[in-house]
Amino acid sequence: MRVSVIGGSSIGPGTAAVAETLGERLGERGHTVVCGGLGGVMEAVCRGAREAGGETIGILPTDDRGDANPHVTTPIATGLGHARNALVVMNGDAAIAVDGASGTLSEIGLALAQGRPVAGIDTHDIDGVAAVDSPAAAVAYVEDAVGSDR
Amino acid sequence: MRVSVIGGSSIGPGTAAVAETLGERLGERGHTVVCGGLGGVMEAVCRGAREAGGETIGILPTDDRGDANPHVTTPIATGLGHARNALVVMNGDAAIAVDGASGTLSEIGLALAQGRPVAGIDTHDIDGVAAVDSPAAAVAYVEDAVGSDR
Amino acid sequence: MRVSVIGGSSIGPGTAAVAETLGERLGERGHTVVCGGLGGVMEAVCRGAREAGGETIGILPTDDRGDANPHVTTPIATGLGHARNALVVMNGDAAIAVDGASGTLSEIGLALAQGRPVAGIDTHDIDGVAAVDSPAAAVAYVEDAVGSDR
Amino acid sequence: MRVSVIGGSSIGPGTAAVAETLGERLGERGHTVVCGGLGGVMEAVCRGAREAGGETIGILPTDDRGDANPHVTTPIATGLGHARNALVVMNGDAAIAVDGASGTLSEIGLALAQGRPVAGIDTHDIDGVAAVDSPAAAVAYVEDAVGSDR
Repeated sequence: MRVSVIGGSSIGPGTAAVAETLGERLGERGHTVVCGGLGGVMEAVCRGAREAGGETIGILPTDDRGDANPHVTTPIATGLGHARNALVVMNGDAAIAVDGASGTLSEIGLALAQGRPVAGIDTHDIDGVAAVDSPAAAVAYVEDAVGSDR
Repeated sequence: MRVSVIGGSSIGPGTAAVAETLGERLGERGHTVVCGGLGGVMEAVCRGAREAGGETIGILPTDDRGDANPHVTTPIATGLGHARNALVVMNGDAAIAVDGASGTLSEIGLALAQGRPVAGIDTHDIDGVAAVDSPAAAVAYVEDAVGSDR
Repeated sequence: MRVSVIGGSSIGPGTAAVAETLGERLGERGHTVVCGGLGGVMEAVCRGAREAGGETIGILPTDDRGDANPHVTTPIATGLGHARNALVVMNGDAAIAVDGASGTLSEIGLALAQGRPVAGIDTHDIDGVAAVDSPAAAVAYVEDAVGSDR
Repeated sequence: MRVSVIGGSSIGPGTAAVAETLGERLGERGHTVVCGGLGGVMEAVCRGAREAGGETIGILPTDDRGDANPHVTTPIATGLGHARNALVVMNGDAAIAVDGASGTLSEIGLALAQGRPVAGIDTHDIDGVAAVDSPAAAVAYVEDAVGSDR
């Protein structure tokens, strides 16, 4: 299945390690990562997914697909600015939030509004978001919620 | 100035009364209401604003401006679905949230991401949102934050 | 009714005069002008409409409503870039094209795709666009097509 | 490179054969097809590209990626309606139009507005669109214009 991974664009090494491990886990399990295509959590999760041989879709706010981080296999330019956040979560069957500020908050809201299951690691404490404490638990949660092991 | 009012589309009479009073207050103070143009908080705030002679802009998710509630003076159709949430908060100088579920949460995130001051009445408890307990306090907060009495 | 006016952003004095006369005509007839909010035909038609006391809506590609020309009474920021062209024609009951290059061509296509009647003055020769030779004829055409004298 | 293929959603067998041959040619040459993801020219070009082992990206107007035709390898849901036309041409390095009505016309305009080279087969006669008479000539034109043999 496809999993949208959302999170901060400006992160420390601990968060980057979590996001990269999450990407590896998703890639190993055969899931495609969907993200905003830029830096921080977006880049780390794509790097991890690629290390595991997974596919990564980056849905960019700009109109230049060259703005994607180097670990995005399918960059999609939108030129929509903040409105592209809706597309990031629309294109996953579920979402996992890692850390993140107001942009991530908006994506959590949009994911819930579109009926997507959402797991969160060290992120906003929001009703409807399953707080988990590891990448493995996050992946297990969304697999179970979507009823897919692929 | 323009104030984006965001909130639930399915509300009870208490919330409707708060939103209507908020609309009256904004209209009396010469502010234009920007909202999503549909029902619930959106309709109640527009009704209140109109009673006070104010202007109301409704930025709709659909492509038919006839979908606006009857108290919207300037309906704007977008056909963008959930992505239109970004436009609702982009078109205000500040935002006030009343009640609301996941759609409102996304708009709070988008407002903060775009640097808008946000006041909240009985809404999500989010860092960066000033929790206030009345329409008058909400309007005072955003007027002060924007540095405008108009 | 609302009439979307589309056309070049970089124009000569002859085209500006035509667009300004068109705006006056629309304003006199009680119609609201919808346009892209920037310069060239967009600015000239708004100036004309304002001279006749009409209302003007400018749907901008940027996320800053301050980018609107000074004759726009209701600026709407979108941050959508080129995708905002769809909203310009969606928000009118009919469209009138004046001059214009590829952006205008896209708006003609979007207007026709959305079932809007389109009149054209010195613009692309497109099947489905009624070529007329004056602002008065353009306004008469769209009034007749929409079945409205308002 | 990526080539946006735009064209009618309701077509006859002759046009379908042309679009399918075009897809095969693009796939054989290692290019990725970008299209609107639905039926008609979009489906035929994807089918051809897949027969040649190529990749296909479908950028849909709806919010459900399940709406893509079966030959799309990477469906992208947008929920943007007509505004998604801007994304179809933004995501290619060049565009090829086959047949088509007003939606295609809007995409030609958007492609030109975004500086993309455009070849056309049996489509609108537009300044700036290179009219060619075969899929092979269309592919040769866009390869040459972009300066890429890949």
